[in-house]
Amino acid sequence: MKNTFGQNVAVTIFGESHGEEIGVVIDGLAPGIEIDDEFIASQLTLRRPAGKISTSRQEKDEYRIVSGVFEGKTTGTPVCILIPNQNTHSKDYSATRSLARPGHADYTAYCKYHGFEDYRGGGHFSGRITTGLVAAGAIAIKALKKKNIYVGTHIRELAGIKDREFENINDDIDILNKKTFAVLDEEAGKRMYKKIEEYAADGDSIGGILECAVTGVPAGVGEPWFDTVEGLLAHALFSIPAVKGVEFGGGSDLKNEPGSRYNDSFCIKDGKIETLTNNNGGINGGITNGMPIVFRCQIKPTPSIYKEQNTVDFFENEEAVLQIKGRHDPAIIHRARVVVDSVAALVICDLLSGRFGTDYLA
Amino acid sequence: MKNTFGQNVAVTIFGESHGEEIGVVIDGLAPGIEIDDEFIASQLTLRRPAGKISTSRQEKDEYRIVSGVFEGKTTGTPVCILIPNQNTHSKDYSATRSLARPGHADYTAYCKYHGFEDYRGGGHFSGRITTGLVAAGAIAIKALKKKNIYVGTHIRELAGIKDREFENINDDIDILNKKTFAVLDEEAGKRMYKKIEEYAADGDSIGGILECAVTGVPAGVGEPWFDTVEGLLAHALFSIPAVKGVEFGGGSDLKNEPGSRYNDSFCIKDGKIETLTNNNGGINGGITNGMPIVFRCQIKPTPSIYKEQNTVDFFENEEAVLQIKGRHDPAIIHRARVVVDSVAALVICDLLSGRFGTDYLA
Amino acid sequence: MKNTFGQNVAVTIFGESHGEEIGVVIDGLAPGIEIDDEFIASQLTLRRPAGKISTSRQEKDEYRIVSGVFEGKTTGTPVCILIPNQNTHSKDYSATRSLARPGHADYTAYCKYHGFEDYRGGGHFSGRITTGLVAAGAIAIKALKKKNIYVGTHIRELAGIKDREFENINDDIDILNKKTFAVLDEEAGKRMYKKIEEYAADGDSIGGILECAVTGVPAGVGEPWFDTVEGLLAHALFSIPAVKGVEFGGGSDLKNEPGSRYNDSFCIKDGKIETLTNNNGGINGGITNGMPIVFRCQIKPTPSIYKEQNTVDFFENEEAVLQIKGRHDPAIIHRARVVVDSVAALVICDLLSGRFGTDYLA
Amino acid sequence: MKNTFGQNVAVTIFGESHGEEIGVVIDGLAPGIEIDDEFIASQLTLRRPAGKISTSRQEKDEYRIVSGVFEGKTTGTPVCILIPNQNTHSKDYSATRSLARPGHADYTAYCKYHGFEDYRGGGHFSGRITTGLVAAGAIAIKALKKKNIYVGTHIRELAGIKDREFENINDDIDILNKKTFAVLDEEAGKRMYKKIEEYAADGDSIGGILECAVTGVPAGVGEPWFDTVEGLLAHALFSIPAVKGVEFGGGSDLKNEPGSRYNDSFCIKDGKIETLTNNNGGINGGITNGMPIVFRCQIKPTPSIYKEQNTVDFFENEEAVLQIKGRHDPAIIHRARVVVDSVAALVICDLLSGRFGTDYLA
Repeated sequence: MKNTFGQNVAVTIFGESHGEEIGVVIDGLAPGIEIDDEFIASQLTLRRPAGKISTSRQEKDEYRIVSGVFEGKTTGTPVCILIPNQNTHSKDYSATRSLARPGHADYTAYCKYHGFEDYRGGGHFSGRITTGLVAAGAIAIKALKKKNIYVGTHIRELAGIKDREFENINDDIDILNKKTFAVLDEEAGKRMYKKIEEYAADGDSIGGILECAVTGVPAGVGEPWFDTVEGLLAHALFSIPAVKGVEFGGGSDLKNEPGSRYNDSFCIKDGKIETLTNNNGGINGGITNGMPIVFRCQIKPTPSIYKEQNTVDFFENEEAVLQIKGRHDPAIIHRARVVVDSVAALVICDLLSGRFGTDYLA
Repeated sequence: MKNTFGQNVAVTIFGESHGEEIGVVIDGLAPGIEIDDEFIASQLTLRRPAGKISTSRQEKDEYRIVSGVFEGKTTGTPVCILIPNQNTHSKDYSATRSLARPGHADYTAYCKYHGFEDYRGGGHFSGRITTGLVAAGAIAIKALKKKNIYVGTHIRELAGIKDREFENINDDIDILNKKTFAVLDEEAGKRMYKKIEEYAADGDSIGGILECAVTGVPAGVGEPWFDTVEGLLAHALFSIPAVKGVEFGGGSDLKNEPGSRYNDSFCIKDGKIETLTNNNGGINGGITNGMPIVFRCQIKPTPSIYKEQNTVDFFENEEAVLQIKGRHDPAIIHRARVVVDSVAALVICDLLSGRFGTDYLA
Repeated sequence: MKNTFGQNVAVTIFGESHGEEIGVVIDGLAPGIEIDDEFIASQLTLRRPAGKISTSRQEKDEYRIVSGVFEGKTTGTPVCILIPNQNTHSKDYSATRSLARPGHADYTAYCKYHGFEDYRGGGHFSGRITTGLVAAGAIAIKALKKKNIYVGTHIRELAGIKDREFENINDDIDILNKKTFAVLDEEAGKRMYKKIEEYAADGDSIGGILECAVTGVPAGVGEPWFDTVEGLLAHALFSIPAVKGVEFGGGSDLKNEPGSRYNDSFCIKDGKIETLTNNNGGINGGITNGMPIVFRCQIKPTPSIYKEQNTVDFFENEEAVLQIKGRHDPAIIHRARVVVDSVAALVICDLLSGRFGTDYLA
Repeated sequence: MKNTFGQNVAVTIFGESHGEEIGVVIDGLAPGIEIDDEFIASQLTLRRPAGKISTSRQEKDEYRIVSGVFEGKTTGTPVCILIPNQNTHSKDYSATRSLARPGHADYTAYCKYHGFEDYRGGGHFSGRITTGLVAAGAIAIKALKKKNIYVGTHIRELAGIKDREFENINDDIDILNKKTFAVLDEEAGKRMYKKIEEYAADGDSIGGILECAVTGVPAGVGEPWFDTVEGLLAHALFSIPAVKGVEFGGGSDLKNEPGSRYNDSFCIKDGKIETLTNNNGGINGGITNGMPIVFRCQIKPTPSIYKEQNTVDFFENEEAVLQIKGRHDPAIIHRARVVVDSVAALVICDLLSGRFGTDYLA
C-alpha cells in the first residue's frame, strides 16, 4: 500500500496537478449512506483558493461520482470521485523544471522517480490532490454526523495570534463549519488575516497551528499498540502537504506540566464517566475514552514564495538562484483546515467500521 | 492488523506486564544480519529502570531468541524474541482494579475488553511491553549502522531545561549512545536529573521532549501520500505509551517563522546536493532528501504519581479517590529514549526494504 | 482493504456494470514503464465479447489513463484508468430485480448491502469490471516482458475436449497471445468452439479449465507461509467471477501419483539448476524455483442461461421461476483467459517489486 | 506482511523445525473467549504423527500460552502460544545440507536466504510449524462452535479410493472430529490406510484430496473482489505445506457440467432461503449465501521418500544422487486435515470480525 490508507474504510488517491483528472476511491463505506451533493460542493469550496490571500488559480471543482452510489446513496462498493483539471498553465513550469524549489518535493521526487515524474505544478505532490480527500471526507463527515459525531477545526494560532480555545465544542464546530476563515474569535481572525496580507505583500508566506476536535466517538475504540487512535490519525494527517507536526490534547503547551496537572481526573457527569480536563485529547493507551478527540497540526508556511531563493539545478548538480513566479498562496492554513476535517473523518469511519462492523455507519 | 506494524519489515508485539512472557516477532529482516547479544543487552539496560529516578522494579531482561536466528545470524524468517516476566507483584493490583488511574488506560481497556483484560500492572498497556521493541530495535540499529545509517536520541527539554542542539550529528549520536541519561550538555543533564528528583520527592512526575536523528538514509525513500516518512514514523512512535506529539525538523519552534526562513535552501556540498538548514527534518513531500531525518516526541509526565487523585470506580459508576502505591517512575523520558531509537530504526528498515528490496540490509 | 490487492504493486477496482465509469488504480508501478496503447487496446479486445459464442453487448472499450502517466511513461505514482459504460440497457433489469439468478451474486449482494446495491446488470459483480484489470494487466505484462518474463494462458479443457500441453512455453505463449480463442491445438479448438455453439443453441452454458504459464521469474521469490506464490496468485485469481478452483503444476491430474513420480528431480541444464518435470508448478515451499510458474483455473459455466430456473424472490421470501432474457454468453472461458493473464502479471509485479525493490521493473 | 495473515483476526507464525521454540501469535480475537486446554491438546494430537503410517518423531506438543489469556479467557490482546522443540536430531541434516531434496524447499530457501537459512529438518518450512496454526485454530474452532459454526474435514479421496460424500454435515463433522483418520465411510478408510502402508513399504508416499465444510456462517460475508471468501481461504490454505490446489463446491468433478446443472437453484426451506444443490460451495460472487462453505484441498504426496532420487548439489552446482534417511511420513493427508480445519476457522473468524465487529465472537 502506498497511496492508500485505511483497513476497513480505505481511501486511495491519484492524480497530478496538471493531469487529466484527479480523484479518490473510498472503499468499505457502509451501504445506504446518503450523498449530499450540496455539502460536498460546499466543502470543496472551503478548500478552494478565494480572496486576496489565496492563489489566483480559480477553478470550480466539478466533481463526478462515477461508482458506488445508486439512487443517491452509497451501495457499499467502492465510491470513485473524479475531479477534472481545467485551468492548467503547463508552460509555466518547464523552464525551471530542474531547479529544486526549497521546501517542495521537486528534488525528492526526482530522487524517487528518476526524472519520470510529472513535474508540472507539483504533479502528484500538489495540494490540489487533497480535493479528492475533501470530497471523500464530505461523505464521511455527513455519515458521522448522523451518529452524532461532530468534526471541526479552527486556526488556533497564526503568527503569534491566538484564537480562543474550544468551549462548547459542538456549538463551536457548528460555527466553524459555516466560516471560510475558521476562527472562533472574530477579532483574532481579522488580525490573522491582516498578517497574511502583510506576508503576501512582502512576497513571503506564513504557517500556523490548526486544532481539530471530534466529539461523540464512543469509548473503547483503537488499539493499544501501533493502531492507536493517535497513530492512525497522525499517519493520515502527515499526508496533508504542509503538516509537519501532530500532537494530541494539551500538546506542547503542557510540556513543563507535572503529572498531577497533566493527568485527567475522572468524574461522573450526568451519570456518565468523563474526565475533568482533556489534556490527553480523548485518548488513553491508544483507545478513545469518550471525551472529544482533540489534536493539533503544525502547518508550515507555504513553500512557494516570491522572494529569491538559493537552490540547486539537480540536472546539472550545481547551485542556482530561483525566483518563483506565477500564482501561489501566502498561507494555506485556512484552506488546509477542511482537509484536516476530511482526513480525520475518514480515519474515524475506518476505526468505527473495524470496531463495530461494516454496517455501523449505514 | 492491530499489534503489528510494518509492511516489509513487520513487528508484532505481545504480552502483559504480569503475564508469563512478553515478546516480539520481527518478520522480513534480511538474511545474514549479525546478532550482537552484547548490544541487545546493553540496549535493554538503557530501557530498564535504574537509580533513584526510576521505579524500583528491578529485573534483568533475560531475553531469548527462539526463532529466525541460526549460527548467530538472521535467517530471513521471523525472529521471535521472548522476555520472561520475573518480578511480578500481582497482589498489588486487585484491590484497586476498578479505580481508573488518571492518564492510564484502565478505563479505556475496560470499555474495549469488557472486563476480560489482564489489569495487573497495566497488562498489555504496560511500558514493559516496549522491552520487546527495544530488543528488536537493537537488531535493526546494528543492521542500519553497517549501512552507515546512525540513529540516536537526546532529551531535548525537560521542565524548561534545554539540552544543546545537535551539531555533528554522527559524533553526537556516538556520545549519546554511551550514556544512560541521554543529553549532549552534561550541565543541562545534571539540572534535568535534579528536577526529576524534585518531582519524585514531591510524589509527582514530569515529561519533556525527546529529539531523534537518523542520518545516512538515502534520498528518495517514502511515499507522497499516506505512507510518507513522517506518517509511518509517527504511526509507530505514537505506540510508545507516553508519546502525545510528534513533529519533524524545526517543529513548533518555527511556528511563527515565514516561508523565507522556514524553507531549506539547497546547496552543493562536496559535490552532493544538501540543504543549508534542515527545518523540514530531512523530508520533503513525504520523501527523504538525504539530510538527517530529525523529529521530536513530546513525552507526557508519567501518569502514576503518589499524590491523591480524583477518579471513578468504573464497576460502580461512581466517583472515588485514588492513591497509587507501589513502585513507579517520576520520569520515563530517559528510559523512553531507547524505545524511540528502536521504533525509528525498525520503521527505517521497513522503508528501506520496501524501496530497495528484501536483501538491502543483508 | 477490500477491493484492493497487492502490497508493493497494488490494484484497486471500482465501478458497476451500468454506472457511469468503471476503472482501476494501479499503485506502486516503477517509474519509466512505457505505455503501449495499442497493446492495451488489443488486450481489451481479447476480453470483449465477439462472435456467435458471446453476448451481443458490443462496446469498444474506450479507456482513458487520467493519472500516473507522463510523456508516454509511468511516473511511479498511481495510474488511474477509466472506462466509460456506453451501452447500458438499464430497463432490462428492474422487473426481475428481486429474483435471485442462480449462480449469480444477486442474493448475496442483497444480504451484504441490504438492498442498496446497484443491481443493474450485476452491478459491481459484473464481469465487465474485469475490463479495468485487463487494462492494468496490459501494462504489467509489457513491463514483465522487458524482463523476459512471459505470461500466457490457454483453454486446457472444455466439455471434455483437451488442448495439447505446453511444450516450448515461450513459443506457445507467443502463439496464444495472437489468438482470440486461445488453444494450442487448432483442431481441439474448433471442436471446443462447436461445443460452445451447441450449448448456446440449447440455451445453456459451459465452463472448462484455463492453464496459465509464467516463465522467467527468478528463483527465490515468495514467502514460506501465507504470502506463498500460490497463495497470492490464488487470492487474486479467485476474484475473477467464474473461477472456482486454482491448482498449481500437475494439479488434480496427479492426485493418485506417489511421491516418487510427483517430486520434481533437480538437474543441471546449460549450467543452471532446473527440474526435470514441473509437477510443482515452479514453486517449492511457496517460493519460485526458477521453473515456469504453471497453474490452472477451473472456470464454471456462465450462470446466465436461457433455460427456465427455479429460484426465490428475496423481497417476498417466496419461491419463483426465472427465465433470464437479454444478452449473455454461453461460455466466458475464452474471454476470461486474458483476465487470468492480467491478474497473474499484476501479482508477479507485486512479488518482484517486494523482493527486489520498487525500481526493479523500471 | 509475510508470515502474517488476516486483517481483523491476524495470525503470525514463527519458528524452525530444530529451533528452540515454534509458535504463533493470534491478534484480534474477541475478549472473553474460553480457552479449552483439553481441546487444544486433542487437536494437537490429531496433527501429531502416530502409528505405522507416520514419522517416528514422537514428541508431545507441550504448548504454553504466554500472553493474551487471563483467568482462562482471551483478553482481546495478542495471544502468543509457544511450543518447544524437544526431539531434534540436528546431526541428521548437516551431511546432505546442499543436496536439494526434490519437492522440498531446500533449493528455493537457498535462493531466497542465500545460505543463511536454518536448513535442519526443513527449518521454517517444516510441517512442524503448523503446530502453532493448530493450537491457534483450536481456539478459533471453539469460538465458532459457540456461534453454531461447525468446521470439519474428511479425506475425500486417496489413491483412487473415495470416502462417501457429506450428508448431514453437522453430524458428519461431529463424527469426523472424533477420529484420528478422518473418513466418513469406515470401509473406505481401512482401504486408504492399507494403501498408505503399501506405499510406506515401498519407500514411497501418497497424497489425496481433503474436503472441508464450514456450516452456519451467515449470508453476506466476504467481498466481491480480491477479498472474496474463496480468495481469503485459498490464500491461507496454500500455506499448508502440501496443498497444491484449492477448489470450492463441486470443483473439478463438475468441469464438464453445463450451467443448467451447475447453477444452484434457490428454494425456501423452513422459511429460509437456501439452495437445492451446493455446487458453488456456499459462495456466490465472493460472498457467503448461508449454505455450507465447502472446499477441497489437493494434498501432494509427502516429498520425503526413501527411494533414491536424482538431484543437485546447489553449493557445487552439480548433479547428485540423494537417498533420504531418517524419519518421515508416507502420507500426511490424515495429519494435514486438522491443519485445514484450523486455517479455515481462523479465516472465518477474521471475516466475521471484519463484517460484524471485534466483539462478534465474544
